[in-house]
Amino acid sequence: MSQPKYLTGDKAGIEEFLDKFDVFLFDCDGVLWSGDAIFPGTVETLEMLRSKGKRLVFVTNNSTKSRADYRKKFLGYGIPCETEEVFCSSYSAAVYLSRIVKLPAPKNKVYVLGESGIESELAAEGVPYIGGTDPALRRDMTPEDFKTIADGSALDPDVGCVLIGLDFHINYLKMALAFAYLRRGALFLATNTDSTLPQANSFFPGAGSVGAGVVKAHGKDPLSLGKPSQAMMDAVEGKFQFDRSRACMIGDRLNTDIQFGIEGRLGGTLMVLTGVSTKEEILGEGKATVPAAYVDTLSDLLG
Amino acid sequence: MSQPKYLTGDKAGIEEFLDKFDVFLFDCDGVLWSGDAIFPGTVETLEMLRSKGKRLVFVTNNSTKSRADYRKKFLGYGIPCETEEVFCSSYSAAVYLSRIVKLPAPKNKVYVLGESGIESELAAEGVPYIGGTDPALRRDMTPEDFKTIADGSALDPDVGCVLIGLDFHINYLKMALAFAYLRRGALFLATNTDSTLPQANSFFPGAGSVGAGVVKAHGKDPLSLGKPSQAMMDAVEGKFQFDRSRACMIGDRLNTDIQFGIEGRLGGTLMVLTGVSTKEEILGEGKATVPAAYVDTLSDLLG
Repeated sequence: MSQPKYLTGDKAGIEEFLDKFDVFLFDCDGVLWSGDAIFPGTVETLEMLRSKGKRLVFVTNNSTKSRADYRKKFLGYGIPCETEEVFCSSYSAAVYLSRIVKLPAPKNKVYVLGESGIESELAAEGVPYIGGTDPALRRDMTPEDFKTIADGSALDPDVGCVLIGLDFHINYLKMALAFAYLRRGALFLATNTDSTLPQANSFFPGAGSVGAGVVKAHGKDPLSLGKPSQAMMDAVEGKFQFDRSRACMIGDRLNTDIQFGIEGRLGGTLMVLTGVSTKEEILGEGKATVPAAYVDTLSDLLG
Repeated sequence: MSQPKYLTGDKAGIEEFLDKFDVFLFDCDGVLWSGDAIFPGTVETLEMLRSKGKRLVFVTNNSTKSRADYRKKFLGYGIPCETEEVFCSSYSAAVYLSRIVKLPAPKNKVYVLGESGIESELAAEGVPYIGGTDPALRRDMTPEDFKTIADGSALDPDVGCVLIGLDFHINYLKMALAFAYLRRGALFLATNTDSTLPQANSFFPGAGSVGAGVVKAHGKDPLSLGKPSQAMMDAVEGKFQFDRSRACMIGDRLNTDIQFGIEGRLGGTLMVLTGVSTKEEILGEGKATVPAAYVDTLSDLLG
């Protein structure tokens, strides 16, 4: 595999690269911002791309927010953004359930391990759910819980799917419930399986880590609807009908973003070094996943 | 590998089997009891073995209790038991830290993800610790936590080890702290890595599942001090100086108990069918881990 092209400071190289694409798919955390801190030049870079007539799509594995929540976040940073331009993994999962799986009622309820973003997207697609942000589950496991989960009396017989995402309120009770539903044969889905979450210029446990306990107990992996799953790419394409050879994925993670773009046979992939993956992981011989090009920071595209 | 001998109802076979051993190592959960329910005949079976002059050792991966807690549980069931006869994985971990690793002070503090059993055993061995049952950690993660964990100001600079066990009060904050200490180079130990916990005649997430999030985030496995780790076998032998060829491990799990006995080159292994592993997993050709013999329930040894 050829070496990725380093574009920072290469004005002609940047221009040539940008000219190859009509559509840019962006990862958000680690690319546009880290946690609550927007990177300098993000707003200007996106403006520059829009001014050249590029279509922008924000494809994020963050499942804690809905598309509407994400749009608010963009607007708060002064970035113009439409809800339709946002694809979160929670939306991807909701669409997969409502339009692909179509669990037959009444056993079509989803037990959610996650935050309100998942709930909003499921509700918007008309998929019934329990769990999630239910305050009744934010408590310690009791001896009674062991009994009622074991004998099934604490379980909802209509649950046909367990959907795990990033849950900042993970606890033993929620894990035990998810595991119990899986043991009864529920379909096992995940919004994404990112092991870490970039936040405050550091790394914290991601959705894949928060859900790892349920995966380990069950002994089987969920089907992931986030990057690099191509279910998400198909959803994006279904919406925008773009030419994949004229699209570029921009991201900070090799095993999610860049792999997503490569497996989706996009025309290009661009890696930024402001997030999870490092330069050392893509340079040299025998690297598994390598982007077409890379820059130190997104704003380097301003030239 | 030869087929395991089925001893239930085989009076002569049982007598011959018991005569081969002076020492019996017992797993507890799934063998003597399930959760809070003792199996019928447990007391009588242990009495019968003691009356034949057998030494009994209770070797459990349950890390939520200390050896003293375990003894109380035995006495509550009417089973005579000395603290010295109990080996929990929390004790095994504490002994490993105090007598083998000997982290140099002041960077010898252990960050515990677990319950009071681990704390008691660490304290008894003089190993300093934080985390564990600390009520200050039983709360939601705040935006401030992300910052102070990321910049290190919320971290104790003296932590040199992260020890994970079964924690019924697992939450995102505790996971984030464990991950942060590991990122700073802390030694990574686990009391055990059992994926499930038998309770109320069903299965719940075990220590391995509760800790799986930290393992997934960190990307590296901990050194496990519970079965089937031979660190625990060495500790048992160090205490009792028994002849391994005259010892038998009795357990319900192939990948912990039976493997523990086989890897420890004990004279025999006996599986009971009242716990995790099933008959189907040991009968037939090409099975990986097979006990020397098996019974439906422990009390079948009464003949």
